[in-house]
Amino acid sequence: MPQTLPPNLSAAQFDRALAGWRAIVGDAHVLSSDAGLAVYIDPFAPGEPHAFAASAAVLPASVDEIRAVLRIANQYRIPLWTVSTGRNFAYGGAAPRLTGSVVLDLQRMNRILEVNETLAYALVEPGVSYFDLYAHLRDKGYKLWVDPPAAGWGSVVGNTLERGFGYTDYGDHAAAQCGMEVMLANGDLLRTGMGGVEIGTAWQLYQPGYGPSFDAMFMQSNYGIVTKLGVWLMPAPPAYLLGEIQFRREADLEAIVEILRPLRLDATIRNHAVIEGGLRRAAGLSPRRQWYDGTGAMPESAVQAMLDKLGVGRWNLHFALYGTPELIDARYALIERAFARVPDARLTAARHAGDAQPTGGGDRNMAGIPAMTAFRMLDWRGGAGAHVDFAPICPATGRDAMRQYTMVKARAAEYGFDYYGGFTAGARHLHHIFAAIFDRDDANQVEQAGALLRSLMSDARAAGYGEYRAHLAYMDFAAAQYSFNDGASLRFAETLKDALDPNGILAPGKQGIWPAAWRDRRGYT
Amino acid sequence: MPQTLPPNLSAAQFDRALAGWRAIVGDAHVLSSDAGLAVYIDPFAPGEPHAFAASAAVLPASVDEIRAVLRIANQYRIPLWTVSTGRNFAYGGAAPRLTGSVVLDLQRMNRILEVNETLAYALVEPGVSYFDLYAHLRDKGYKLWVDPPAAGWGSVVGNTLERGFGYTDYGDHAAAQCGMEVMLANGDLLRTGMGGVEIGTAWQLYQPGYGPSFDAMFMQSNYGIVTKLGVWLMPAPPAYLLGEIQFRREADLEAIVEILRPLRLDATIRNHAVIEGGLRRAAGLSPRRQWYDGTGAMPESAVQAMLDKLGVGRWNLHFALYGTPELIDARYALIERAFARVPDARLTAARHAGDAQPTGGGDRNMAGIPAMTAFRMLDWRGGAGAHVDFAPICPATGRDAMRQYTMVKARAAEYGFDYYGGFTAGARHLHHIFAAIFDRDDANQVEQAGALLRSLMSDARAAGYGEYRAHLAYMDFAAAQYSFNDGASLRFAETLKDALDPNGILAPGKQGIWPAAWRDRRGYT
Repeated sequence: MPQTLPPNLSAAQFDRALAGWRAIVGDAHVLSSDAGLAVYIDPFAPGEPHAFAASAAVLPASVDEIRAVLRIANQYRIPLWTVSTGRNFAYGGAAPRLTGSVVLDLQRMNRILEVNETLAYALVEPGVSYFDLYAHLRDKGYKLWVDPPAAGWGSVVGNTLERGFGYTDYGDHAAAQCGMEVMLANGDLLRTGMGGVEIGTAWQLYQPGYGPSFDAMFMQSNYGIVTKLGVWLMPAPPAYLLGEIQFRREADLEAIVEILRPLRLDATIRNHAVIEGGLRRAAGLSPRRQWYDGTGAMPESAVQAMLDKLGVGRWNLHFALYGTPELIDARYALIERAFARVPDARLTAARHAGDAQPTGGGDRNMAGIPAMTAFRMLDWRGGAGAHVDFAPICPATGRDAMRQYTMVKARAAEYGFDYYGGFTAGARHLHHIFAAIFDRDDANQVEQAGALLRSLMSDARAAGYGEYRAHLAYMDFAAAQYSFNDGASLRFAETLKDALDPNGILAPGKQGIWPAAWRDRRGYT
Repeated sequence: MPQTLPPNLSAAQFDRALAGWRAIVGDAHVLSSDAGLAVYIDPFAPGEPHAFAASAAVLPASVDEIRAVLRIANQYRIPLWTVSTGRNFAYGGAAPRLTGSVVLDLQRMNRILEVNETLAYALVEPGVSYFDLYAHLRDKGYKLWVDPPAAGWGSVVGNTLERGFGYTDYGDHAAAQCGMEVMLANGDLLRTGMGGVEIGTAWQLYQPGYGPSFDAMFMQSNYGIVTKLGVWLMPAPPAYLLGEIQFRREADLEAIVEILRPLRLDATIRNHAVIEGGLRRAAGLSPRRQWYDGTGAMPESAVQAMLDKLGVGRWNLHFALYGTPELIDARYALIERAFARVPDARLTAARHAGDAQPTGGGDRNMAGIPAMTAFRMLDWRGGAGAHVDFAPICPATGRDAMRQYTMVKARAAEYGFDYYGGFTAGARHLHHIFAAIFDRDDANQVEQAGALLRSLMSDARAAGYGEYRAHLAYMDFAAAQYSFNDGASLRFAETLKDALDPNGILAPGKQGIWPAAWRDRRGYT
């Protein structure tokens, strides 16, 4: 296919920019061939993968190199799409929102700059993965845990900035972030919070600092390039318990949410407990074809037969308790008593010493051990497995959870998709995550997945539910749902964008925020 | 004294602006006489109180009135200093940073807009005090607690925006904030986070929303006027325990901090435990003259005699445990065991049913009941009691706590002040709060208090400690401590300020952030 160029740029101009970047980061670290750019193609595109094609990728090794790269981008007004490692495949991987953007790939900046065992934190660069940090802690013998997200190869910085979550008490990654270093579009270097105190030692200890706090505005945004990030780590507990409760009926979801909420609110359960749909649980154990090989969504009877055979609940609540055995037992007793109200609820628990490892893959995440078992889901439908996620925030009430579940399940079936999903429980909200799994070599499935996502987002809009995150193709659509006062939120976001990045070089279109220079590119794909 | 005018404005122009405002909010709600403005004078000024004089005060009753007030302020370029109720006397009360600013006093906007018992939150306007919210919850029978700061008359919105803290598990007020409505300088109205979804119900449930999160940038800042704020409330616990541990030796501080940190990190203690200096504890029980009537700081021998007589520790750790009696007992046992390492530590605990009230004033805060007992401190030195606070962030290590304590105590003594202070414990940091108590009718004491504060801030700067907050007189000084990369933090803050408030009408100088129009006013008083 023909070379993709940055928008509004001639091939000759682009060649000069590339030459400039090569002089900064070295020839090997500027990629512009089709082969070199293959890893920057949207891996699970719910549509044409080249709709979000990069024109090149630049891989700097330091803050100074980033500054020099920015200078050239400003000069030629070339949009840069920053990724830490670009491994969140369901949201676009390392592909940019605006076709022709140059990916600024920070994977070479992969130093673990500091680990403080006493105060339980780490300071890392964007290229550090959860696997890397976990291995480092284990190798050095630090008594600290990481909180891995579903896929352990993800970047700590990237996952945190996108507000990913994990499974231990530190599951809210954005909440466990403390202190950033950020390079702005003009090359200025900012340290947030207490990082402003040059000889200070509290950068990773107290989040806000003095005056307004800016960290949260660099999350899911395009206001700067985060070059260092502090993350709080959980002190290794003396013991832990991994619990599962299986529920038999679809309608039990309402009771589960109503019982779980007070236990989350009073911190009896402190981790991000997961209410996993039966089909998602079953998919970790076997492929779909074993149970059903017809077209369209799996019929109820087949789902029920599968769940019965596999000994999996219609809903499966996973939770974890960390601490001394005495405290774990006392909390467990409260949980047991609370869920006994639900007929046929079946509770099992495995107790472990703090330094012991569980055997199950999903369980490993709750024990602070990164894994890649989440990728098993890709085998569910067979073929070249891919998925795209619908992720609305759900109030933590049984009524809302049932409403969202019913709505999503019905719509998914209409497009031929199974309800593959679950709810991750904050205290007052749930992250409802539904994955449309498809074979990316099957053009019809790809098209249906895309169409389903658009329908789900319209449903959510009509029902007053907003998404917490969206794939490249739906970023503008999701942003448009936040329409209070004629879109005041986006208007505010873009006022800041224009002040901080007048040439519009940093990640145009990220989460629906377009700089003045590219505002005409806003659109629903 | 002569009428104070807004800077760069003639009396005639000012009269026209006042007339405009009177037409909007009514004559009774525009104050410009000396008598009317008396409550806007810095009540505990560590220097000349009129150094921060307002030219008028305007008290709007609604968001629409605020918008109209802003239009006139923009027209005449009159700086407005917003206060919710302006009751934090130690940091300047309701007085503005820039002399001649008009106070925009939001106390009339005092509606409790919503309380949701199931999801445990409230949505309030700026004029709602902790007393108001507490009374409302009690009157309606909601099983929810407020987390009061030291003085219960403070505004929930004001205290939260200034990052105040309280004493229960919800003691980090900024962390328990969820959702804001903000009016910008141009009259545009923004709802943060999930508030952007017009028919949504998750505004007070999930903090970040979609895309960058802006709430934290409206704290301790001058980017907008917060008109509504969501606050998470603690579900009333079935029982609670209030604990005190007395320690005999000054040097015990190091062990206290080292033992407390792991208990805070693993959530055995979840409230903002307070390590209170003996003198501060004693001051709640008796005035200074009972023990010493010489000049200068109280000698060690007198302090020791006082502590012995009153049965107060040199350090006194206050903590609270909330939950079921079984969990409270299990956690208490861990605390008891941990502190048994410190020789002569004396632990006492009072257990209460969740709906029972403790008798002590300070204790009432830990039981979610607002009080005004903090004002007893003003009687310590006699006369017209006032205080100004030095509030550095301290890493949660015994070494840092001892270093800050020793530094502050020595410097205070040099200026004739007692060490009246303590540490409030986050998990990885401590808020070290030292109060210089003085008689505001004694010109020498006032002057010494001001001089002491300046010395302490220089000491902190040299040692690498930054403050989390500062009185009007020291806002610029505190901001200057955040000097990384030639003040990148302030440079960034002011870039945003100019983009959002081009006429510089909102709170110029707040936390050291000056709009372009008034940037020449920056200075250390």
